[in-house]
Amino acid sequence: MSERSSQINGLAHPARWHLAVPFTAVELQDGLWAPRQKAVRERTVPFLYAQYEKNGLFEALDVDSPPGPLRIPFNGRPNTAVMYWDSDIAKWIETASYTLATHYDPALDARIDDLVARIAKAQRPDGYFNTYFIRREPAKRWTNLRDWHELYCAGHMIEAAVAHAQATGKQDLIEVVRRYADYIATIFGPGPNQRRGYCGHPEIELALVKLYRLTGARSYLDLAKFFVDERGRQPHYFDQEAIARSEDPAAQYYGTYEYSQSHTPVREQREVVGHAVRAMYLYSAMADLAGEFDDVSLMAACKALWADVTTKRLYVTGGLGPSERNEGFTADYDLPNETAYAETCAAVGMIFWAHRMLLVERDARYADIMELALYNGALSGLSLDGERFFYDNPLASRGGHRRWTWHRCPCCPPNIGRLVASLGQYVYSTGPDEAAVHLYIASNARLSVGGVNVSLQQKTQYPWKGEIEILVEPEKTVEFALRLRVPAWCRSASLAINGTKFDIEATMDRGYAHIKRRWQKGDEVKLSLDMPAERVYANPEVLADVGRVVLKRGPIIYCLEGADNDAPTHRIALPKSNPIEAHFERNLLSGVGMLTAEAVVVQSWEGGELYRTDPPTMERTTLRAIPYSFWSNRDSEEMSVWIREV
Amino acid sequence: MSERSSQINGLAHPARWHLAVPFTAVELQDGLWAPRQKAVRERTVPFLYAQYEKNGLFEALDVDSPPGPLRIPFNGRPNTAVMYWDSDIAKWIETASYTLATHYDPALDARIDDLVARIAKAQRPDGYFNTYFIRREPAKRWTNLRDWHELYCAGHMIEAAVAHAQATGKQDLIEVVRRYADYIATIFGPGPNQRRGYCGHPEIELALVKLYRLTGARSYLDLAKFFVDERGRQPHYFDQEAIARSEDPAAQYYGTYEYSQSHTPVREQREVVGHAVRAMYLYSAMADLAGEFDDVSLMAACKALWADVTTKRLYVTGGLGPSERNEGFTADYDLPNETAYAETCAAVGMIFWAHRMLLVERDARYADIMELALYNGALSGLSLDGERFFYDNPLASRGGHRRWTWHRCPCCPPNIGRLVASLGQYVYSTGPDEAAVHLYIASNARLSVGGVNVSLQQKTQYPWKGEIEILVEPEKTVEFALRLRVPAWCRSASLAINGTKFDIEATMDRGYAHIKRRWQKGDEVKLSLDMPAERVYANPEVLADVGRVVLKRGPIIYCLEGADNDAPTHRIALPKSNPIEAHFERNLLSGVGMLTAEAVVVQSWEGGELYRTDPPTMERTTLRAIPYSFWSNRDSEEMSVWIREV
Repeated sequence: MSERSSQINGLAHPARWHLAVPFTAVELQDGLWAPRQKAVRERTVPFLYAQYEKNGLFEALDVDSPPGPLRIPFNGRPNTAVMYWDSDIAKWIETASYTLATHYDPALDARIDDLVARIAKAQRPDGYFNTYFIRREPAKRWTNLRDWHELYCAGHMIEAAVAHAQATGKQDLIEVVRRYADYIATIFGPGPNQRRGYCGHPEIELALVKLYRLTGARSYLDLAKFFVDERGRQPHYFDQEAIARSEDPAAQYYGTYEYSQSHTPVREQREVVGHAVRAMYLYSAMADLAGEFDDVSLMAACKALWADVTTKRLYVTGGLGPSERNEGFTADYDLPNETAYAETCAAVGMIFWAHRMLLVERDARYADIMELALYNGALSGLSLDGERFFYDNPLASRGGHRRWTWHRCPCCPPNIGRLVASLGQYVYSTGPDEAAVHLYIASNARLSVGGVNVSLQQKTQYPWKGEIEILVEPEKTVEFALRLRVPAWCRSASLAINGTKFDIEATMDRGYAHIKRRWQKGDEVKLSLDMPAERVYANPEVLADVGRVVLKRGPIIYCLEGADNDAPTHRIALPKSNPIEAHFERNLLSGVGMLTAEAVVVQSWEGGELYRTDPPTMERTTLRAIPYSFWSNRDSEEMSVWIREV
Repeated sequence: MSERSSQINGLAHPARWHLAVPFTAVELQDGLWAPRQKAVRERTVPFLYAQYEKNGLFEALDVDSPPGPLRIPFNGRPNTAVMYWDSDIAKWIETASYTLATHYDPALDARIDDLVARIAKAQRPDGYFNTYFIRREPAKRWTNLRDWHELYCAGHMIEAAVAHAQATGKQDLIEVVRRYADYIATIFGPGPNQRRGYCGHPEIELALVKLYRLTGARSYLDLAKFFVDERGRQPHYFDQEAIARSEDPAAQYYGTYEYSQSHTPVREQREVVGHAVRAMYLYSAMADLAGEFDDVSLMAACKALWADVTTKRLYVTGGLGPSERNEGFTADYDLPNETAYAETCAAVGMIFWAHRMLLVERDARYADIMELALYNGALSGLSLDGERFFYDNPLASRGGHRRWTWHRCPCCPPNIGRLVASLGQYVYSTGPDEAAVHLYIASNARLSVGGVNVSLQQKTQYPWKGEIEILVEPEKTVEFALRLRVPAWCRSASLAINGTKFDIEATMDRGYAHIKRRWQKGDEVKLSLDMPAERVYANPEVLADVGRVVLKRGPIIYCLEGADNDAPTHRIALPKSNPIEAHFERNLLSGVGMLTAEAVVVQSWEGGELYRTDPPTMERTTLRAIPYSFWSNRDSEEMSVWIREV
């Protein structure tokens, strides 16, 4: 492990905001997450490789062989998933690279090298790299940024290269993407012979910021800023581009530029709209750039969008984008449960955005949402065994919704994979004279504060228990502030340092206990977060949830699953005053916190009428709830997050 | 008015079952329906004509002029709505013809004649008539029965011709469709040089039965039977046809032959599946043929399908087919409210099927569902002014769902139009020695029982009041049984004949009071149906409706609409024991029965959080409900059918 990337290339540590402690410097220990990381490393990575091979994704890298028939036809859509296969390969490389940082595997390293070599070989002399256009449509390069994901694919390859370089120190993929990014910077820009375009699917913007931070080359940051600044300006690039293709600009598949958040310049955007993943990736880049450029108007837009999504358009799981139609947002408070689309990638994107807002603003409310999405709406996308995936994450099911092993648009598996594999980087961050703990995850971390190397050992059974021990081991005694997040869901927290009680309330700053002291080897911080099971209610504007309640404990949203309950879950109702009990089930789902309560259940009817005038009767039952993200790991299929309260 | 069509062409009146008293012999009087018929006649018919003209439908009849660009592109679908424009024109002719029977309008008559002349001119010498294939794809005639609606269009033109002939006595359109049907009978059939095909969208089958009943030509009945009998047989015609097109039979757009109810031979079908309108049209033809051929196995399938839909897959409104994806059925008890597709055409088709089951079986349970769909799920498709239409009929809305004036697939407006315009034919039927009243609608009817002409005058304010007076006026004194339906929702009915109480219970037969007597001029029957406002509950298997209640009075399903209530409708809850009051509002929505009750409403939150741990509070309110089919006639947009019960 090394903390290389937090101080690479001599970039000054920004005074105003934090840098994440990189995944290379954090090793997860036992608990909920380490086994999930292990599953990604040992199962998801080889499983996806095999799936890609079987489905022809890697074959697409052989750009000089004839393309053969298109595996996934257009089917009336403006694009085919084949157009973004590069991004899936990139996300696999990114995920696999993360795993190498903490668990080196020479065979996997060689496998990545092989792919990188094939990518380098396919790259055109001018730097261009996109297997679809090189092989199938060379004349159509850069002719439809709106629909064809060309820069999006470039962005993912850049992210893969950055991860690969950080994890292995190897520069070969970085060289490929730098050549490509340099070439892109000649095509796109404000110059007279350049195109003022940007991608329909944001992604390259945040990737270019990463490339800048790795390499220190300012041109990548400027290109990211250019793409973000151009977005939604008039005359609209997608209009002009459509006219150049002799197409009617109005005849676009999705009907509105809101779909790609290009309906208006980004600084004027105040409402989260359109395709949810595109939105999250765009806002992530906006947060990055707002930090890098201290850009007040860009941050104002980010904050307004944040307020909009968190007060009107976010599922209680941290999932978002309720509609399958546009894979995205609809209207305020439109949060249906059974038909919730809530794409895994969107929750992952929410985490990306929240993480960036957190680093710039150092405000725990961003960490609260990051944690919510992480434990619930994102994690639900991945099975316990690491080989099955959800694309959409409904909050209620009568059955028929199971994780799949393959999807024609396989974006979600490597997205949740790369998130889990790189989870270390979301736990800690550092500022010039402080370190922050955002997530309570058993782990060892090496970081640098004020030029002094500090090791943190975090011991906890969080999220099942609220007690956290942090052993602080500076190389030498050093003064800095340790910021410990007190989650918004926690109503009572206590803290002791080396056995002495510490007054949390007096030092609370934007959701963090702020412990400024001279730290020495062996200092031990004990944080205790009161973590009762609670009932959560939705704003009455949310039609689907009126009269319903969610069970929550700590960061975990619970659900009723058929396997644990004697009655169909949608018929179970919870009386208003019944207490909720929490316990840990060692032998269930690899060990899981459960909630139980005395409840009632609507009885089946005698006879088969569909409607009748006398009401059904109720009987007593015991309700058993498991974490939402653990559902669909058994044969049962029924599931309810929102429980009727009676 | 004449009763011509009940005894046309010397076809023997079947002893086993009833014939409808035709629309030509029934005139609706004041009440709910006569103004709706007037709106269809005076508004819908000219409005749709203008819309068709504007959108190029009539222009498509000019098959010898160059076609120009396709108005509605394929957009990845296997067909374009342009392929079924003939059916929309046909349904317009059918609707317009019905109106002529009771309200002759020479200008409209001439307008129909003009269209008929254009159709006759476009017909090919061999009898073929389909504007799309004649004009655009002459080489593709009969090459894709699965997707291209070719026989479906023929079916609608046949229905139009039958209505036109019945209403006006004119034979010119009948001549066109007879030539076409005769030609079709040469192409399709069991012979060695014939095709054993049938249409992906059932429709021609029921139309051919109508053509047979009008003309007495048995070949049409046999062709209908052939199409029904072939459906779903192996080797599968749609497979063979796809192979002939060099296509993979498995690569069909809708994934399964259940979509077109051709997954298995019809006599083996026991579960309603697939596209709901296709299902209803198919089952209608099956019921017709089961009656005509006394076909026990076909009727057994009809009854099993009927039991399936009415106990597992029917909305409380009589609407059906919950999913937009396949415009049809999904799983048992899957009846979501806000996303209910419940296409207007499907509820209209349900009425077609129920009516045919009723005539063959003479059992009031079919009339009960027919009435339910008529007053609720079908009528909701049409605005009070006759110029706006719903395609899908959700049972809850937060706004944004309004009737439109035009749709790219404009099937619903003329479908609800032809139903309302021909509503007279659903009210009465006759058997050899009996007459039945199925619906209570103020009307005058002329019918023939046992060879004697009988006039019936029905006076009632139903569905707002439960009292019905029927004046029986036989040409001469004659013995027959008058069957009066006692709806299943009615728990107490009383009857008096010429002021003398008649014991209903003693004569009840399959849901009808059975009054056998010698009727003479001036006999007066008074039926009184107890019609309290009631609460209706859904089977607890229906996830969406657990803990909820519907308000119903007589055949009318009520809903809460924003315009009548002080609070957002989804926040209103009805305490279990509060009484429901009914009254008539003369000045609202052209006069409408309303229900009111004391209720509670969940209060808005102070502050804008989306989720919190303390529950919202409730306050008292008065709930005001209007009939579901009357919603969306004002600016308000919120609507709820299923009300939370607390």
